[in-house]
Amino acid sequence: MLAAHQYSHHVLFRNRQAIRFLSTSLARTQQYRTEKDTFGELRVPADKYWGAQTQRSLQNFDIGGPSERLPPPLIKAFATLKKAASIVNTGYGMDPKIGEAIRQAADDVISGKLMDHFPLVVFQTGSGTQSNMNVNEVISNRAIEILGGELGSKKPVHPNDHVNMSQSSNDTFPTAMHVAAVTEIHHSLLPALTELRDALDAKAKAFDHIIKIGRTHLQDATPLTLGQEFSGYVQQITNGIARMEGVLPRLSLLAQGGTAGLNTKKGFDVKVAAEISKLTGLEFKTAPNKFEALASHDAMVEAHGALNVVACSLMKIANDIRYLGSGPRCGLGELSLPENEPGSSIMPGKVNPTQCEALTMVAAQVMGNQTTVSVAGASGQFELNVFKPVIIKNVLQSIRLLADGSRSFTKNCIVGIQANERRISSLLNESLMLATILNSHLGYDNVAKCAKKAHKEGTTLKEATVSLGFLTPEEFDEKVRPELMLHPDP
Amino acid sequence: MLAAHQYSHHVLFRNRQAIRFLSTSLARTQQYRTEKDTFGELRVPADKYWGAQTQRSLQNFDIGGPSERLPPPLIKAFATLKKAASIVNTGYGMDPKIGEAIRQAADDVISGKLMDHFPLVVFQTGSGTQSNMNVNEVISNRAIEILGGELGSKKPVHPNDHVNMSQSSNDTFPTAMHVAAVTEIHHSLLPALTELRDALDAKAKAFDHIIKIGRTHLQDATPLTLGQEFSGYVQQITNGIARMEGVLPRLSLLAQGGTAGLNTKKGFDVKVAAEISKLTGLEFKTAPNKFEALASHDAMVEAHGALNVVACSLMKIANDIRYLGSGPRCGLGELSLPENEPGSSIMPGKVNPTQCEALTMVAAQVMGNQTTVSVAGASGQFELNVFKPVIIKNVLQSIRLLADGSRSFTKNCIVGIQANERRISSLLNESLMLATILNSHLGYDNVAKCAKKAHKEGTTLKEATVSLGFLTPEEFDEKVRPELMLHPDP
Amino acid sequence: MLAAHQYSHHVLFRNRQAIRFLSTSLARTQQYRTEKDTFGELRVPADKYWGAQTQRSLQNFDIGGPSERLPPPLIKAFATLKKAASIVNTGYGMDPKIGEAIRQAADDVISGKLMDHFPLVVFQTGSGTQSNMNVNEVISNRAIEILGGELGSKKPVHPNDHVNMSQSSNDTFPTAMHVAAVTEIHHSLLPALTELRDALDAKAKAFDHIIKIGRTHLQDATPLTLGQEFSGYVQQITNGIARMEGVLPRLSLLAQGGTAGLNTKKGFDVKVAAEISKLTGLEFKTAPNKFEALASHDAMVEAHGALNVVACSLMKIANDIRYLGSGPRCGLGELSLPENEPGSSIMPGKVNPTQCEALTMVAAQVMGNQTTVSVAGASGQFELNVFKPVIIKNVLQSIRLLADGSRSFTKNCIVGIQANERRISSLLNESLMLATILNSHLGYDNVAKCAKKAHKEGTTLKEATVSLGFLTPEEFDEKVRPELMLHPDP
Amino acid sequence: MLAAHQYSHHVLFRNRQAIRFLSTSLARTQQYRTEKDTFGELRVPADKYWGAQTQRSLQNFDIGGPSERLPPPLIKAFATLKKAASIVNTGYGMDPKIGEAIRQAADDVISGKLMDHFPLVVFQTGSGTQSNMNVNEVISNRAIEILGGELGSKKPVHPNDHVNMSQSSNDTFPTAMHVAAVTEIHHSLLPALTELRDALDAKAKAFDHIIKIGRTHLQDATPLTLGQEFSGYVQQITNGIARMEGVLPRLSLLAQGGTAGLNTKKGFDVKVAAEISKLTGLEFKTAPNKFEALASHDAMVEAHGALNVVACSLMKIANDIRYLGSGPRCGLGELSLPENEPGSSIMPGKVNPTQCEALTMVAAQVMGNQTTVSVAGASGQFELNVFKPVIIKNVLQSIRLLADGSRSFTKNCIVGIQANERRISSLLNESLMLATILNSHLGYDNVAKCAKKAHKEGTTLKEATVSLGFLTPEEFDEKVRPELMLHPDP
Repeated sequence: MLAAHQYSHHVLFRNRQAIRFLSTSLARTQQYRTEKDTFGELRVPADKYWGAQTQRSLQNFDIGGPSERLPPPLIKAFATLKKAASIVNTGYGMDPKIGEAIRQAADDVISGKLMDHFPLVVFQTGSGTQSNMNVNEVISNRAIEILGGELGSKKPVHPNDHVNMSQSSNDTFPTAMHVAAVTEIHHSLLPALTELRDALDAKAKAFDHIIKIGRTHLQDATPLTLGQEFSGYVQQITNGIARMEGVLPRLSLLAQGGTAGLNTKKGFDVKVAAEISKLTGLEFKTAPNKFEALASHDAMVEAHGALNVVACSLMKIANDIRYLGSGPRCGLGELSLPENEPGSSIMPGKVNPTQCEALTMVAAQVMGNQTTVSVAGASGQFELNVFKPVIIKNVLQSIRLLADGSRSFTKNCIVGIQANERRISSLLNESLMLATILNSHLGYDNVAKCAKKAHKEGTTLKEATVSLGFLTPEEFDEKVRPELMLHPDP
Repeated sequence: MLAAHQYSHHVLFRNRQAIRFLSTSLARTQQYRTEKDTFGELRVPADKYWGAQTQRSLQNFDIGGPSERLPPPLIKAFATLKKAASIVNTGYGMDPKIGEAIRQAADDVISGKLMDHFPLVVFQTGSGTQSNMNVNEVISNRAIEILGGELGSKKPVHPNDHVNMSQSSNDTFPTAMHVAAVTEIHHSLLPALTELRDALDAKAKAFDHIIKIGRTHLQDATPLTLGQEFSGYVQQITNGIARMEGVLPRLSLLAQGGTAGLNTKKGFDVKVAAEISKLTGLEFKTAPNKFEALASHDAMVEAHGALNVVACSLMKIANDIRYLGSGPRCGLGELSLPENEPGSSIMPGKVNPTQCEALTMVAAQVMGNQTTVSVAGASGQFELNVFKPVIIKNVLQSIRLLADGSRSFTKNCIVGIQANERRISSLLNESLMLATILNSHLGYDNVAKCAKKAHKEGTTLKEATVSLGFLTPEEFDEKVRPELMLHPDP
Repeated sequence: MLAAHQYSHHVLFRNRQAIRFLSTSLARTQQYRTEKDTFGELRVPADKYWGAQTQRSLQNFDIGGPSERLPPPLIKAFATLKKAASIVNTGYGMDPKIGEAIRQAADDVISGKLMDHFPLVVFQTGSGTQSNMNVNEVISNRAIEILGGELGSKKPVHPNDHVNMSQSSNDTFPTAMHVAAVTEIHHSLLPALTELRDALDAKAKAFDHIIKIGRTHLQDATPLTLGQEFSGYVQQITNGIARMEGVLPRLSLLAQGGTAGLNTKKGFDVKVAAEISKLTGLEFKTAPNKFEALASHDAMVEAHGALNVVACSLMKIANDIRYLGSGPRCGLGELSLPENEPGSSIMPGKVNPTQCEALTMVAAQVMGNQTTVSVAGASGQFELNVFKPVIIKNVLQSIRLLADGSRSFTKNCIVGIQANERRISSLLNESLMLATILNSHLGYDNVAKCAKKAHKEGTTLKEATVSLGFLTPEEFDEKVRPELMLHPDP
Repeated sequence: MLAAHQYSHHVLFRNRQAIRFLSTSLARTQQYRTEKDTFGELRVPADKYWGAQTQRSLQNFDIGGPSERLPPPLIKAFATLKKAASIVNTGYGMDPKIGEAIRQAADDVISGKLMDHFPLVVFQTGSGTQSNMNVNEVISNRAIEILGGELGSKKPVHPNDHVNMSQSSNDTFPTAMHVAAVTEIHHSLLPALTELRDALDAKAKAFDHIIKIGRTHLQDATPLTLGQEFSGYVQQITNGIARMEGVLPRLSLLAQGGTAGLNTKKGFDVKVAAEISKLTGLEFKTAPNKFEALASHDAMVEAHGALNVVACSLMKIANDIRYLGSGPRCGLGELSLPENEPGSSIMPGKVNPTQCEALTMVAAQVMGNQTTVSVAGASGQFELNVFKPVIIKNVLQSIRLLADGSRSFTKNCIVGIQANERRISSLLNESLMLATILNSHLGYDNVAKCAKKAHKEGTTLKEATVSLGFLTPEEFDEKVRPELMLHPDP
């Protein structure tokens, strides 16, 4: 038996069905128009451009809700493709007025202002056919509107006969995948990584004079400069940029034109790739083998492999930085990270490394997406891989998270990092690792004696060495100079 | 140099910064109020209940956008926890009027109608502190409103002192994680799997009389009934349900009360768990060891391990069904899947197995989430795991996708599957596998002769056996009865 | 052009082919006997019991070499199954003398002394047929030898007719998989985890009085005891043991008898499971649905899910311990780990946490195996999953690595851990976190003043509080007692 | 209580400890010599070259047994490095006689004949220090033997002072990792992939004239040639080769010389890389940033990302081929795969696609190794990544499995594939997809009528079209020519 107060709660939680019904009821006051496809008629919200096939997908694939929608960059890439196709099709004889209207409508999609008209989720047909139709329907209806026609009439701009002319889902969807991924890498990820690299490099230079204890196996090791430590991060990101650039050639090959035979023209493939290049300012080429381009998504798996390396690099860097910034009293405390939000109200200096935390969570997400993309990419069957939407969703998510995460990390963490030189220097001087530099002066055995004495008594190496009579304080200071341990002997 | 038409396109794509600036400018016409935290003052949209710490997180973690927001079930679980805490705190002496207002405000959150007031993304601080504060701020401001106070005044209901009373982020966030996961498994996934199991079971029974060729290594093998084949799927889902139920005990242990020492009361932990149980109608207990409950998320990794098994089961089942439904002429063609959307306009019988495709994409996503959850779950440090948001995001996503995917698959595929009995029977009779039943009658060597002749000449086994004079047609039919091959000899 | 010295090197590396030819040539001096199967005759090394089908697999699957052989526990489980089957078959009328010889031969396999006779690798036929035949051939030849017959004659003990009687690869291989996994979990992993749990628990008790600084977000936080910290690890392993036990019920269901129809007897399945239970002293039952048992390996995916949680737990624990042991001078230095091998010759106290490193590498391996097992487990087709060998290889590897790794970690690290009480206490006292306890005495603002002064001047909280005149040193010591911060207020 | 027969069995299984003790006891009859390190003396088998540090690791890391040993290519790469270092060190003044002896000893290791002297497993110290010492010890003792000295005396060739001169574990182990990976990719994987590509290409050409039904969504689709289908596979492998070549530049950068400071010479890094290049005939360079080279293993993660793509490609290809070869009567049956081992004794034509099964298991293993390598690669800490052994183990395993698997697949499957032209043609003609070609002749509606009639009555399209009076049989044959559907309209 449930008590009254818990009953109401229970109902709140349980009644999905009721809520759905409710929203359907409410929706009845909404305006609709009728759209149809070969399957029959369907009511579509009057204020939306989509048509019957989109509506049908919405109803048949109630999986995951709005947060699982296909991402905007894919929709924009689709519109770019439709625009390019309309240019080429006009060249092949399509009515120029129709072509022009398609391009205007496509620009509206590219601008982002029609994003609410693309409600379909990732978990639909694996070819993405329904999203291709969503694009065709929205562009056709918007173009009809531009030309003064009636929404849903398919006249004068037909979603299939005009917007999808010379194309099919099987070649448009992979084309949009590649255009979207290349565009996002180019306009979002590469600039973000470059910013991060530059910010790290600035720190590497600023920290070049600060000698610190090294740590291998987490144990005190020979010294290096804080600048050298950061230079390792710089190299990682520099390589990451090169890795991302390295996947662009195969990612820039487009499947468009891969629907051989009945519904495309010879040369359409090359021309569309050229138009897309012009429109985007990025170089795309038609894929040399369309069978591979439709049936496999190796280029996506490859691209995600590079994203995965970037994620691993960021995980390492962010982990280092949060450990180096640990404290304020009981951690390593070599770095001070910027304080961006309230930490402890009473504890000055307690700055949680929240940007590092966000970035390592991004890395964990990308490392998992790698598994998803691999499983999906390996699952093509005969002439088609039908895991396309989940592949591009994960690739674009990884690109965006790495880009946004890097940008946030750069701006809200890296640029504000300060070295606690006093702490760094104090740790270095307390360390016994400097003993190794005395080997050539005192011999292994004597040096070991000094270090053991210091370790046992909790004193510094200098104190032990002096008290054992091996060196005067002045001699010690002259010989034990960490800066001599930073580079190979000349 | 870019041509004019491409310039405009280029600009559309590139100018994130500009667009952000624009939306900021536009936003200036929006109404704001001022909220403050220990860090200072901040402007917050006047129509939102959130406060300064939420606003600060929004600005500092511009990572991934709205689709990366923490999922509603977590927010609702958080509100349930706050409601439960207010009951217990009232018992410990908190002003009952404040408690009642908190509960009313919490109910508003639980109802889902305030979901727009929870804008924070997964990629924030790894303890989820900012989302805990988001809940505190929204409930406090809503409660203030209920009591006629001024938003942002923190009076008479303070986000920290009242809504968060006796709690801290470190124990509320993991508590909300567990409540959300258990609730979603219970109210969403288990019912969906049960529906699927029942639908498969109904088919197994309906298909019990249909004898078909078995396939091992994809090669023709000894026959079984189509019902037996489906019974394997039923068993997989039955086990999947048991697996999910098997993770509930450890998932139902709550971390609340784990912030030892200064800010909680002895017994608070047990009482809060009891209240949450009452409110949700599900059994929760306080965790026996709070150090484990805060620093590890093994129970989440364990739960996702079970989700991962369900994903693997669904991948297998959906793959089988789409291959068995392949055709209409050039595939296996044993099943007809329901046609839910237009396939080929001209090709009757070409029904793309789109529900199978959606479901296998769900499976691929969940298999990747497993990696994310494992990496994040393994990354706790000392007294806290700071990958909490990404863990719960992935767990809840997997639960929802498996639930929604199963429900869609059941409704739009399984219940409408029909067996093509003619095709099944014709394949069975063409098969040479039935030869094995003749071994005891004719001996291996003779049977092999018949089979080889049939194979070579492309005829049926019956034709070959009769033409070799081993049996009359009547004898063949009497002896070669596939139904005898379905069960062990008595 | 290659210089002389590099030529020789080059040749050494390149000439696999040559080396293979060489070993073939050398092998010519070896003795052989002829074995045959339905495919024809083959030469087999005279000192090996295996027959033609094993030899053929060796030649056709030259993939990975000896380190990729199927693991011994699987071979032993196979022999146990053959022994059990011979008992049941004798009951059904098989010549008792043959049954007895099979059992003797099976015991030889179980003892491990014939392991060289099982050369087949994981990457063979996906049903494991060839390993089933390897077992049949070895047991048959060894039984023939016991009975004084001629190797390869298949008389009086035939590999198929007797050793494989009433069985097929499709049901023996999954049966052996389950028997092997259950046995190894029971006899190897569970004892190893229990040892580890007990060793951690002993430390938790021994460290119960040591109050230390807590760390959340890697930042100084409210204190706890070192014993409490270790109690979290104890709970993780306790749960891990429960998780492994939790997968045993479904893992103990055997597929044997799943080859319906022509070649097995009614009741064989139940009897074989009973015999295996008797032989192993562990409870096994026949699977309720054999179609599921052959076509899916969900129980293996489930079992590996639990192994994966154990790996994540161990990763967390080993990471904590190596960070707590970091130093000797420039790390956290709260623990001293046992020194098992030479670290730095000159650096006393530099003890690399090598056992932690080995264990975290084990965890990384198991986390990857999880992906392999999931991909393979999801890939069943119709009546058979043909990824069986790679699944069981990974499951058994994970079990063994976790067991061996835990045992090594327990013995060579945990039991020897010592707390550096002086260091722990010094960190605790330097910390400013203790300030929070003064809130109720001095009020937030004053406490914040003290903490800020200490932070700014690098002094202790006590010094700052006293110098600001809020408390006398005696009052400070009386009020600021970390032991009051360990538990909720009564 | 256990019965007698089960007791013996039980003991066989359980008594690992006993068996270990036994082998220790037996071992007592073995001969030993004494070796020592800074930790003290240890007994080492007299017939082995290894020394005290190796022996100590063997005892302290009893994890996984022989099948977990570090792979031979790594050991060989290590020896190559030691050889190169001895050349450079001789240039810097090391006694030439010692250098020469080191090189001879190193050659013995490279030849593979000393492989039994490298018993250490992956799960040791994460820097691989113990394996570096294993190499130093074996080469030193072998060199001592060559020079007539006493094993274990460390004279005249000292493992540290001479074999490890100017080096440390921290730079030798990553150097050996890179040399091993590059060598194996170059000498093993690339040739194997090239063979596979060529074999697929030969089939693509041989099958160029065979027109077949296409399959998208597993459903009948527009025709293509079998040659075109295979050309997709050729493209995948061609890309795979390019991908592997693409990772070589960063993989060819060597960490050697990264131990800055006290124990190496300026220029040593460049010279060693040059010597290794000469010795291997492959181009290696010194890494531009040694901090990155020691602390991260991004280049390994990157390389494995490419291996992972190859695995995904092979999974797709092998899956297609086994489905196309499914049958013989009840599958797709378009291909005949070579029969390499007995399938069904009585069932002619039942050829299990065992090579496809082995290859897809390889792919599943590699996809899991990707997770392991990513987790391990992301886990570097400060100046060192201590997951080195598990990273290189997985990378080398993936390389070898892909190479061996591809070679086996090529030789035992691809080259022997035959097209069943009669079956292919019969499926094509039965298909209704050819109807689409009639659209331009008869119009959509009429064509749909024909197709629906054929579908409903189970007749061919030709029969339906003729019987509806749209075309004569001759007209049908003239118009419905699949070869017109293979390419875009000119």
